[in-house]
Amino acid sequence: MMLKTITMQWTGDSLILIDQRKLPHVVENVVCKSYEEVAQAIKDMVVRGAPAIGAAAAFGYVLGAKQFSHLKGEHLSKAMQQVHDAIARTRPTAVNLFWALKRMHEKFLAAKDQDFVKALEEEAMKIAREDIETNRSIGRHGQTLLKDGDTILTHCNAGALATVDYGTALGVIRAAVENGKRLRVYVDETRPYLQGARLTAWELVQLGLETILICDNMAGWVMKQGKVNAVIVGADRIAANGDVANKIGTYTLAVLAKRHGVPFYVAAPISTIDLNVKDGSQIPIEERSHKEVTHVGDLRIAAEGVKVYNPAFDVTEHDLVTAIITERGIVRPPYEVNLKRIMGVEP
Amino acid sequence: MMLKTITMQWTGDSLILIDQRKLPHVVENVVCKSYEEVAQAIKDMVVRGAPAIGAAAAFGYVLGAKQFSHLKGEHLSKAMQQVHDAIARTRPTAVNLFWALKRMHEKFLAAKDQDFVKALEEEAMKIAREDIETNRSIGRHGQTLLKDGDTILTHCNAGALATVDYGTALGVIRAAVENGKRLRVYVDETRPYLQGARLTAWELVQLGLETILICDNMAGWVMKQGKVNAVIVGADRIAANGDVANKIGTYTLAVLAKRHGVPFYVAAPISTIDLNVKDGSQIPIEERSHKEVTHVGDLRIAAEGVKVYNPAFDVTEHDLVTAIITERGIVRPPYEVNLKRIMGVEP
Repeated sequence: MMLKTITMQWTGDSLILIDQRKLPHVVENVVCKSYEEVAQAIKDMVVRGAPAIGAAAAFGYVLGAKQFSHLKGEHLSKAMQQVHDAIARTRPTAVNLFWALKRMHEKFLAAKDQDFVKALEEEAMKIAREDIETNRSIGRHGQTLLKDGDTILTHCNAGALATVDYGTALGVIRAAVENGKRLRVYVDETRPYLQGARLTAWELVQLGLETILICDNMAGWVMKQGKVNAVIVGADRIAANGDVANKIGTYTLAVLAKRHGVPFYVAAPISTIDLNVKDGSQIPIEERSHKEVTHVGDLRIAAEGVKVYNPAFDVTEHDLVTAIITERGIVRPPYEVNLKRIMGVEP
Repeated sequence: MMLKTITMQWTGDSLILIDQRKLPHVVENVVCKSYEEVAQAIKDMVVRGAPAIGAAAAFGYVLGAKQFSHLKGEHLSKAMQQVHDAIARTRPTAVNLFWALKRMHEKFLAAKDQDFVKALEEEAMKIAREDIETNRSIGRHGQTLLKDGDTILTHCNAGALATVDYGTALGVIRAAVENGKRLRVYVDETRPYLQGARLTAWELVQLGLETILICDNMAGWVMKQGKVNAVIVGADRIAANGDVANKIGTYTLAVLAKRHGVPFYVAAPISTIDLNVKDGSQIPIEERSHKEVTHVGDLRIAAEGVKVYNPAFDVTEHDLVTAIITERGIVRPPYEVNLKRIMGVEP
């Protein structure tokens, strides 16, 4: 079984990840041959983006199964629990990680007395292939919200690189372009990790779109001048009431969009919706290294002696979200009811 | 006549500026011996901050007068007009530049048949010394708005380095601390030029304040968590109706402050108020080099092929401004009336 996209390759005995820390200046791969290496790659942001993390975690789980395939019974179950936990501990906010691991672990429990390695590999491939199809469906639904000539603003990277392929927020933009709509895109650089300047700008330029890079603090001024027709972002976790955890800065964009009457869309697969958390206050927000803020690469930019606060995500209240674009269709308020409905749960 | 502050030194025949492009890592001076060198230093942001630009322009004008002191009559007047225009052309948004040049040029016209060089040097010294006293007065008035234990958020640098000494927004914070109030300060890093991370953080750490650096896109999330009691920023130009041009990102902060019920204060000298512009739409907004956005120092961060939009300032509508703190007192809405009143103009 093999898979090859821009974000990841599965060779059957290794997961090869494009090193997103080095893009766009250096195109280099990181080869993971064990579940520990996959966990480290997720933690270090070699691979990032909620759906991509989910798929990488699934392949990491397969590598763990290969590592422990000589074990039996209790020993095997314990080892696979350890694989699950090690990968789960890497990043707390994106729920797709836990969703994919849960799906893999359930498959293991069902298949552990048969050829479980093969069953798990098939399941990971299924997760990866579904993700691509899911993103294309998100694009098909979402592109109906955009008009020819629109200017879109996006934050962070919710493109092919944040998924197995195609992208969520950028998938919507791609689908609109594939439907003949001419779009222009403002890209927030997205400090501190610069996913916008490095990854989203790279993807959009390759797609041939007019791409205008701005610093995050310019988005308000751009909107005030009437230059933006819609904001589209991805999501790392969506609570049952429609609150959205996404890259730090998303909340500010949503507040600005509301003030300027600009629709604010979230594009995300069903696997990002977590009905177990009632609202955004229950979503754990990862804090990352201070060095991400005090330095750019190895270059220190900040004065010595300062403290730093570096939350990697924030939560946007559901009342600021115009619609959530999923592979099953566009969900509008009231999210409390309509998210359950689209997930096939009795409201 | 001599002056020596952290920002600038006047030696009698040169203006020595601390090179703010290199702070805080390298403390280095730029020596200007001609008006052309002062103009270049303003343009290149060796010196920045509206009040500091005003004072530097005044000393640049004096250097021009020394360069042309051998001229007489028409020739002299033409030359000094040229000095005026060359310095005026450097940066369009901060009105203090034009205010100081107008004051110097009027002094020249009044004194050109006497010892005009000496008269101009005295006038520039007066502008510089007044600026320090002005900032102390802004601090005295403004600190009454802050309480012991407050947490302040500020943007860009409106500190000693943005003025001849003491600072406007940071002057308010300093005055509060001098009055025994314990404050904590969140500092926006202020992309693209990082005046917050480099200059404000440096000043506040030296003053011994608890200083927490954040990326600009984190301010909304910090406010949402109830961590901020007041926002204080400086200004580059204030229109007759109270609209405030200031460093890009200020407008977004004001929108966020409004949403969270956090008071939004602007600290600025009377010389920043421009009754000749009716509202913010008439204030010219400088756009700067794309390289400021695509690079940090010499390190390229952005993907190749992107376009860039790099406005250096934005305009905050007066209805988002809780109060304007001047050396003559605190101005509150309606600004249309109260700004004229504090400037001694019949409303």
